[in-house]
Amino acid sequence: MELDTAKGVRDFPPEQKIERNKIIQKLINIFTLYGFSPLETPIIERLDVLTAKYAGGEEITKEIFKLKDQGDRDLCLRYDLTVPLARFIGMNPTIKLPFKRYQIGDVFRDGPIKLGRFRQFIQCDADIVGSKSMLADAQCISLGEDVFNALNIAVNIEVNNRKILDGILEYAGIPEEKRLTTILTIDKLKKILPEGIEKELAEKGLQQEMIKKIISAIKIEGTNNQKIDALKKIIKTPAGIEGIAEIEQLLSYCKKRNIIFAQYLARGLAYYTSTVYEIFAKKSTVTSSLAAGGRYDKMIGGFLQNKQEYPAIGISFGIEPITEVWKEQNTKEKSQKTVTQVYVIPIINKEAKTESKNNKGDNTINECIDLCKKLRENGISTDMDINGKGITKNLDYANQYNIPFVIILGKEELRQKKVKLKDMNSGKEELININDAIKRLVSKILSK
Amino acid sequence: MELDTAKGVRDFPPEQKIERNKIIQKLINIFTLYGFSPLETPIIERLDVLTAKYAGGEEITKEIFKLKDQGDRDLCLRYDLTVPLARFIGMNPTIKLPFKRYQIGDVFRDGPIKLGRFRQFIQCDADIVGSKSMLADAQCISLGEDVFNALNIAVNIEVNNRKILDGILEYAGIPEEKRLTTILTIDKLKKILPEGIEKELAEKGLQQEMIKKIISAIKIEGTNNQKIDALKKIIKTPAGIEGIAEIEQLLSYCKKRNIIFAQYLARGLAYYTSTVYEIFAKKSTVTSSLAAGGRYDKMIGGFLQNKQEYPAIGISFGIEPITEVWKEQNTKEKSQKTVTQVYVIPIINKEAKTESKNNKGDNTINECIDLCKKLRENGISTDMDINGKGITKNLDYANQYNIPFVIILGKEELRQKKVKLKDMNSGKEELININDAIKRLVSKILSK
Repeated sequence: MELDTAKGVRDFPPEQKIERNKIIQKLINIFTLYGFSPLETPIIERLDVLTAKYAGGEEITKEIFKLKDQGDRDLCLRYDLTVPLARFIGMNPTIKLPFKRYQIGDVFRDGPIKLGRFRQFIQCDADIVGSKSMLADAQCISLGEDVFNALNIAVNIEVNNRKILDGILEYAGIPEEKRLTTILTIDKLKKILPEGIEKELAEKGLQQEMIKKIISAIKIEGTNNQKIDALKKIIKTPAGIEGIAEIEQLLSYCKKRNIIFAQYLARGLAYYTSTVYEIFAKKSTVTSSLAAGGRYDKMIGGFLQNKQEYPAIGISFGIEPITEVWKEQNTKEKSQKTVTQVYVIPIINKEAKTESKNNKGDNTINECIDLCKKLRENGISTDMDINGKGITKNLDYANQYNIPFVIILGKEELRQKKVKLKDMNSGKEELININDAIKRLVSKILSK
Repeated sequence: MELDTAKGVRDFPPEQKIERNKIIQKLINIFTLYGFSPLETPIIERLDVLTAKYAGGEEITKEIFKLKDQGDRDLCLRYDLTVPLARFIGMNPTIKLPFKRYQIGDVFRDGPIKLGRFRQFIQCDADIVGSKSMLADAQCISLGEDVFNALNIAVNIEVNNRKILDGILEYAGIPEEKRLTTILTIDKLKKILPEGIEKELAEKGLQQEMIKKIISAIKIEGTNNQKIDALKKIIKTPAGIEGIAEIEQLLSYCKKRNIIFAQYLARGLAYYTSTVYEIFAKKSTVTSSLAAGGRYDKMIGGFLQNKQEYPAIGISFGIEPITEVWKEQNTKEKSQKTVTQVYVIPIINKEAKTESKNNKGDNTINECIDLCKKLRENGISTDMDINGKGITKNLDYANQYNIPFVIILGKEELRQKKVKLKDMNSGKEELININDAIKRLVSKILSK
């Protein structure tokens, strides 16, 4: 047996998991402030449900992990949280709309493993189902901004509308069958610049006249209003005009937010029908988006093969890139290897070290147990030496785990009704009474 | 396509998930106070690793969900969190012991579905690896008591030591090959009473003399000390004597805790080697244990086929029975269908209802957006009508979701620089200014 994890999945040791939990907790706080309630759906789904029409597209279907139960039923592991949301909506027809839920959970894709791609990874989604109003879109985008404020990460929010993109394609006269591939190229604007777009579209067989028109439309610069005004002059299809009205409405609901209208933004080929947006770190080596989302008004109804429409808009946060940026920008913070804030070291006479009922004379251990109890009652995460190690080994242990404070308690301290409190960062030691030690620790630790 | 979940797995709609999260958050708080750090291991594991010697026993192996990746590798879904912990320890040999971690995560078993058994269910485990000291056992048990104090559930904690149980079997002269099955019967004492034990052991072919001795040993009643003193008279094997010394040591570390020594407690046939314990609700229709654990000193080393010993002790919480008891004992609390605490209703002139850039005259919507922002900045979970529903439909929506407060804001209120605040429980409405409304809501909601 080779002792290893499966390919493409990871352990998160405490050092990483503590950090991840902090970030996720901030997300949950903001989701909650915005009135998104938690939903949990199972990791195992029926294969037929997940591969139903409209569900994921072929690229995803072939990456689904398949399995069977003992009853030979065809099952699979969920590959996203959106299709399970659609299933949940379909199975709960009496649910009051709009329904706002967030879900944080692992999804699975049996794809090739490149740098930064994993077979199990977490998705953090918030969605509003049952509203066509741009107020819903504004809410998701505001939520995104608030999350990054809470994380102290400066971001740019770029927003577009798929109908505007379609309007640009109409304007350029792109034939129906070339539209998807053209959108894929346009989406690369920031990466490959207008010259790259020009070249790639020519390779894809578009005529020079079409390419020129596209480049002119996606290159328009200026304020949001200037860009919109310029596009109004070239977009003449009803859908395109609707898209412009939608983006104007959306921007009017986000007046106090700093949002950039980016008419080239496409968000891949997914099921988006209207608003699309992406959030990027302002100053970072991480160039991929930290969060993104869009409106998918046809997906749920289509998936449910239901006559009812379920217009929906969501936001999805990428924990991996967020963690990376967060680490980049918080280098001063010492990484936490343990949740423990105080480590209590009992000093025990050698004779009393052997565990037995007979060492009633030395009640240091029980005093330490009581001290731990008191510290915990005051909200301080406390651990104590349980292996009867010597003082040097114990300090080394506290050091290895970056535990900020140590309390040393032996017979001498007990006699004086005091404890020795050691600040592991400064190295400073003081002999103070227990209640003072607790007060000091509470103020030092909980004020952080 | 039949729109359904897979067999034996569940959705947790917000109503249930909010409750579960509350309970889990309390567990996490106490784990953290005790210095257990979070660990995350993947849901997908290598099949050979999970089915290695010592890992789970045959009953579990046959219930493992198996799958393959595109590279035809044999994989599976984890069936518990203990084997992944052992793997993690084995893959991180430089880790400083004792290593204290908690893990909360779903595990999967492809077993028969009976009432209350699921194919995906959550496990909440805290374990200490690398200490033989009964201080570690005492810590796990104290943690258990503190969790149920935090949950306001009165519990009995029963504790035993497998070496004592073995000592009783020695005393009764049970032959080696009958020991496991005898332990399984003894474990049922509370369910089938001494008469049932007698009958079942006779059916299993034990001699009357043996049965008599067992019954006499497991029937011993009294205080913990009285029971221990009585057992000291009949347990004479070195291991049995060691077991008694261990339980005495453990009880001495739990002086301030209310723990019952239960010499019949076995905890099934698992890999326990010493301390075992179970925690039960005092007054409840739920008779199964809410939490349980024990010491497994040989399991990790055996699994790793390693010469090093990894003595370990853990506690595992059953979220399902805990939730059941918690609901039983908190019937007064209205179940929360949403996290939203305040629902803001904009009253909009019919003419202005159509979304367009032209209704600049009516800034009610933007005032409501600002109000939501302020409430959220004050820590209040806020939602607003985004679909332009009428007041009756909006109040109905707030009612359906049990949202405790509603704020109504229209032109008239705006003119007076006030809002209408409605307490949905009392039905009381008042017209007050925005800052007073926020103050009132903060004190009413956040004081809870």
